[in-house]
Amino acid sequence: MTARSFDRKNHEARPLEIIPDFTANADGSVLVSTGNTKVICTAFLEEKVPGFLKNKNQGWVTAEYGMLPGATHSRSNREAAKGRQQGRTVEIQRLIGRSLRACVNCEDLGERTITVDCDVIQADGGTRTAAITGGCLALYLCLWKHRKKYFVPPVVGRVVAVSLGIKDGEVLVDLDYAEDSSVDVDLNLVMTQDGRFVEIQGTAENKPFTRAEMDRVLAMGGDALDLTQKAQRQALLDYGVDESWIP
Amino acid sequence: MTARSFDRKNHEARPLEIIPDFTANADGSVLVSTGNTKVICTAFLEEKVPGFLKNKNQGWVTAEYGMLPGATHSRSNREAAKGRQQGRTVEIQRLIGRSLRACVNCEDLGERTITVDCDVIQADGGTRTAAITGGCLALYLCLWKHRKKYFVPPVVGRVVAVSLGIKDGEVLVDLDYAEDSSVDVDLNLVMTQDGRFVEIQGTAENKPFTRAEMDRVLAMGGDALDLTQKAQRQALLDYGVDESWIP
Amino acid sequence: MTARSFDRKNHEARPLEIIPDFTANADGSVLVSTGNTKVICTAFLEEKVPGFLKNKNQGWVTAEYGMLPGATHSRSNREAAKGRQQGRTVEIQRLIGRSLRACVNCEDLGERTITVDCDVIQADGGTRTAAITGGCLALYLCLWKHRKKYFVPPVVGRVVAVSLGIKDGEVLVDLDYAEDSSVDVDLNLVMTQDGRFVEIQGTAENKPFTRAEMDRVLAMGGDALDLTQKAQRQALLDYGVDESWIP
Amino acid sequence: MTARSFDRKNHEARPLEIIPDFTANADGSVLVSTGNTKVICTAFLEEKVPGFLKNKNQGWVTAEYGMLPGATHSRSNREAAKGRQQGRTVEIQRLIGRSLRACVNCEDLGERTITVDCDVIQADGGTRTAAITGGCLALYLCLWKHRKKYFVPPVVGRVVAVSLGIKDGEVLVDLDYAEDSSVDVDLNLVMTQDGRFVEIQGTAENKPFTRAEMDRVLAMGGDALDLTQKAQRQALLDYGVDESWIP
Amino acid sequence: MTARSFDRKNHEARPLEIIPDFTANADGSVLVSTGNTKVICTAFLEEKVPGFLKNKNQGWVTAEYGMLPGATHSRSNREAAKGRQQGRTVEIQRLIGRSLRACVNCEDLGERTITVDCDVIQADGGTRTAAITGGCLALYLCLWKHRKKYFVPPVVGRVVAVSLGIKDGEVLVDLDYAEDSSVDVDLNLVMTQDGRFVEIQGTAENKPFTRAEMDRVLAMGGDALDLTQKAQRQALLDYGVDESWIP
Amino acid sequence: MTARSFDRKNHEARPLEIIPDFTANADGSVLVSTGNTKVICTAFLEEKVPGFLKNKNQGWVTAEYGMLPGATHSRSNREAAKGRQQGRTVEIQRLIGRSLRACVNCEDLGERTITVDCDVIQADGGTRTAAITGGCLALYLCLWKHRKKYFVPPVVGRVVAVSLGIKDGEVLVDLDYAEDSSVDVDLNLVMTQDGRFVEIQGTAENKPFTRAEMDRVLAMGGDALDLTQKAQRQALLDYGVDESWIP
Repeated sequence: MTARSFDRKNHEARPLEIIPDFTANADGSVLVSTGNTKVICTAFLEEKVPGFLKNKNQGWVTAEYGMLPGATHSRSNREAAKGRQQGRTVEIQRLIGRSLRACVNCEDLGERTITVDCDVIQADGGTRTAAITGGCLALYLCLWKHRKKYFVPPVVGRVVAVSLGIKDGEVLVDLDYAEDSSVDVDLNLVMTQDGRFVEIQGTAENKPFTRAEMDRVLAMGGDALDLTQKAQRQALLDYGVDESWIP
Repeated sequence: MTARSFDRKNHEARPLEIIPDFTANADGSVLVSTGNTKVICTAFLEEKVPGFLKNKNQGWVTAEYGMLPGATHSRSNREAAKGRQQGRTVEIQRLIGRSLRACVNCEDLGERTITVDCDVIQADGGTRTAAITGGCLALYLCLWKHRKKYFVPPVVGRVVAVSLGIKDGEVLVDLDYAEDSSVDVDLNLVMTQDGRFVEIQGTAENKPFTRAEMDRVLAMGGDALDLTQKAQRQALLDYGVDESWIP
Repeated sequence: MTARSFDRKNHEARPLEIIPDFTANADGSVLVSTGNTKVICTAFLEEKVPGFLKNKNQGWVTAEYGMLPGATHSRSNREAAKGRQQGRTVEIQRLIGRSLRACVNCEDLGERTITVDCDVIQADGGTRTAAITGGCLALYLCLWKHRKKYFVPPVVGRVVAVSLGIKDGEVLVDLDYAEDSSVDVDLNLVMTQDGRFVEIQGTAENKPFTRAEMDRVLAMGGDALDLTQKAQRQALLDYGVDESWIP
Repeated sequence: MTARSFDRKNHEARPLEIIPDFTANADGSVLVSTGNTKVICTAFLEEKVPGFLKNKNQGWVTAEYGMLPGATHSRSNREAAKGRQQGRTVEIQRLIGRSLRACVNCEDLGERTITVDCDVIQADGGTRTAAITGGCLALYLCLWKHRKKYFVPPVVGRVVAVSLGIKDGEVLVDLDYAEDSSVDVDLNLVMTQDGRFVEIQGTAENKPFTRAEMDRVLAMGGDALDLTQKAQRQALLDYGVDESWIP
Repeated sequence: MTARSFDRKNHEARPLEIIPDFTANADGSVLVSTGNTKVICTAFLEEKVPGFLKNKNQGWVTAEYGMLPGATHSRSNREAAKGRQQGRTVEIQRLIGRSLRACVNCEDLGERTITVDCDVIQADGGTRTAAITGGCLALYLCLWKHRKKYFVPPVVGRVVAVSLGIKDGEVLVDLDYAEDSSVDVDLNLVMTQDGRFVEIQGTAENKPFTRAEMDRVLAMGGDALDLTQKAQRQALLDYGVDESWIP
Repeated sequence: MTARSFDRKNHEARPLEIIPDFTANADGSVLVSTGNTKVICTAFLEEKVPGFLKNKNQGWVTAEYGMLPGATHSRSNREAAKGRQQGRTVEIQRLIGRSLRACVNCEDLGERTITVDCDVIQADGGTRTAAITGGCLALYLCLWKHRKKYFVPPVVGRVVAVSLGIKDGEVLVDLDYAEDSSVDVDLNLVMTQDGRFVEIQGTAENKPFTRAEMDRVLAMGGDALDLTQKAQRQALLDYGVDESWIP
């Protein structure tokens, strides 16, 4: 078996780094790094809701995802210049949006929309899972900034995410780009702070996986994410978010 | 608990109906119905490959998905007229494409592309899973039609799919539209003929699910899909496909 | 002269088959077949009008046309994926829309829009004329379903359509695909139940036609369409539409 | 009956004015006016053919149509800014293209494409028919400019066009904008120099027309177009085009 | 040094020709020619403002620019058919819009929008500067037509424009197409009737220019534009615009 | 007069910070900050040229510009999601591209394309000028990385840029967002290391400027940019770029 980046064991995720307030203008802003993958996550709260929620006394959380053309080893096309988002982009931002909606009680939010933007500035695998872990933080910082608007925090959970792979029967946690390109099965897990699942997306173009492999994936992913959610919680506390605002 | 359509128990899928050669011009063609959901699946083999596979001695399998504006209870917009496919459409056709690529050995296929089109003519929930089960059949009929091109069948597996939901802690197999709109968790399972998983996509916007619930989903889904793959196999045999071509 | 499909004489149209309620969800639904050309026509009545008719006390009838990628002998591109409708598609759906508007009294319709979708599932020439004959049926079934909304049927006529060709001076009625590709002149005729014309579109890229040829086209087309409109009328009666609703 | 513009009888077309070489850069250029409708028609011959004609030893003729935003009484949207051509535009430019292809022998043309652009600078009804009459002239001037490339003129005919309307049973020739908005039936006729038809497009949204009305339309349209084709011929002679190049 | 078109000295602009009311339907219309460059400029006043000016008691002036496919020596693509405006077009129409907004007092204009369309029918260099000189005239004719709406003319200035080039150290005024393709520096100057600058856009892809060269450009450009603005003023007087309306 | 950010005099630019290798994957990468404006600039060298330069023995330099939705005080739309770049974006990236092409000798570059991406992660005015100063650095780092490909450095100059404004007759150097919104004249200056101009873009929607004001702008801008180009040079030396590679 080849050595893993950051000298990791199979069950270990890459080092997680969180820099809050990475940019100055958004309501919430975080640079999240998992190893060499770096994603800027920003969040804005706006006093409006999309058309399908007009006059329903509830809010909305949505997400958009992008990758700078310079983030990858060879330049990737600028989607704005091409005039359309790729299928992969659309799929990822829908995943992030669904995951973040699991954090918020939309009735408590009020008729407001929170938009979380996740823009990858350096890509080395796992950009969508880093975007979820970081996007949840940007969402919380955004709500915390607007805390005067709320009697009760309009939150019901926090989410963290990680990718896993199966290669020759072995489960690997938190794939970097080289691993991601070589595994038989690629799986993304989104979990809440209390160990429940929000999203499971596993795909096996090359080699379908067994129930037993799935069980190992869920167990190892759950353990890794438990560490991630603790780091996420600590980052919020360090920032000064009140404990009552952190599920 | 409310009664289920077709007088079903929680673990039962809707009646599956398969009409091969439903249309005359495509290389492979099937109308697949699961209850009131009806999807036309067609497949064409073309002697070309996409740009990224040029001169690599291998083929490609891809899928596209659409929904007739008249398929739903209230008219849905025609995507061609809007000038773009919705995010949901893109996500679904990528899922179908990945699932069908698990059926084929792309080296054995040769420098050819098989395109499978799945067009929903009547929608009542589970259109993407019906499209996978039917798309696999169209793919096989297409290859069978072109069998003279091959010494060995370029296939490695068959796929079938089903949706599952969790509602108030209970697992439901094969959701119709009304159920799909009311469950807490919505999960799609794509399985091979020998019980391995190709895709697992579970999403819980409203209420994250536990490991125990996940286990029940995988078990009940596996059982239901075993019946589906047997029906799929029988349809191929009835059509006259040689048993050596059916994994 | 080569034999014609379905062993037809020059003046004969292909067998017409009409299956009402082919799909379950639309307000009106028909599968219309002329020989090997098969088109699903659906209609919805919606309580709204387009912007240019706001507050004018009248309704609107419009049509959209599509072709499944699998409908043709070699796969045709999915327009939704390309991001635009072809010129041919636009031209056809405008023709269908104008033809169907000749069926309805827009003042009597009220501030409502009926949208008729014509989607070709199998193509063998004459898809636009089949779409008109079938679209008119879907429109009538839609209005009949909503008959409680009306004191007087908001209809003024029925339309049927057929294609004609001129080849080496001979007039052929109802061209199939092979004929359509080889004629000198291609003409589409849309007629009402009482023998008046709603649309005449003749085009002669290869060999302009004379006034005498035009006269024969109009005569033979008129005779063929008289049979078609009788079959269309009978289909409505068989369905149970009251005779007072059928011009 | 209301008076017609330019003090015309029902059977009379508006004054036709032809200014060749209206612009300097195109291979062929004409400003054509029919009454207050003014269209710039330009043509270019290029040494290339579209993909579907590669290596077939033949050429192609195509047309595009546009309307300046300032051409109409209230400003019309610029299609380039909207990012798509309207359905009406697409329909018109396809009609012009088909009509002009009837002028040319594509084998004699050689592997070349002639593109005719028809841009309306002032609109008062009948823009598409003026574009055909003028586009044919631009096409001929373009071929004449390149005459050294040809032993035999690659032409087989000339086309001219006119619109006709039926209003309260009366046939009107060459509708201006006000008439066009009020007739029951609107019909465009494209004819060759020898009185054969290339295109007939009649549409009757409001009031279907009878065979007898159609006969009168064809007769009156034919007479009017005979004058137009003579003026077109004279314009070519005046320009110095050799009589052997003018069918 | 090569001879310049129209037998000009370096400091001389090409002959300017102004034909007001060139087309009949717009509120203001002008054909402006500078040498062989010809641009139709039209203007409409509409009783509406863009969204960002709603309820601000002020109006807006905007411009759009286009080039007929037949305007250039080899045919240029029709942007409407391509489905997007080129970068060059966008840049030019933004320049024209900004320049024309310098003519008008938007508060005095009232809640109205003037849209000026500049469409090049013949191109020989300097199309954007001709568009500005002509667009200003169309704007004034449009306002003059609507003069009954105003107590005070809502204008604050007039603009004229010219291109300049630097070639081998020499400054050339009003470049034609051949010169434009060969100069080291290309500069556009937009000036008011009293010699102040509204826009300066200089670009030197090949050979950066010195401060001294810039000084000569500004001096020679200023002199040339002073003649242009006098001609522009005279054209308005000749048209019958009251002197009190002409700054 | 109001105080300026960073306690500046009118002639002073904001603090410039340059972080090379800010991201890891591009051939050249820089984070450039001017005050609170932060732009990631990356550059890639690719062994290909655009179509119009095929077989001409020369290379090309181009630039693209974007702004993260979270970069501004209120969220700006993601252009990729809207499906088109705004006019402002197109204008800016064309300006950056032209400016950077003044740095390179395209013949010496060989048949290669360098693409420079400038993505604003935090916006406070002057993003396009920061992008030029930083883009030039990314370009140089990219060439330095590929230095083994070259005998002679394929460079002819370096560019730096700054914005200037005129407010109530006073000239301000390096406008922040608040100033940018309130000046009468907004001007961008792109200069080479030896004090020559590559681009001058001045615009005065509100209040045209005089020749004397222009003179002051050029003088103060030149002085400020002389400091900037020295800092730019030092950054390249600090990085280890050989002096012979730095004009």
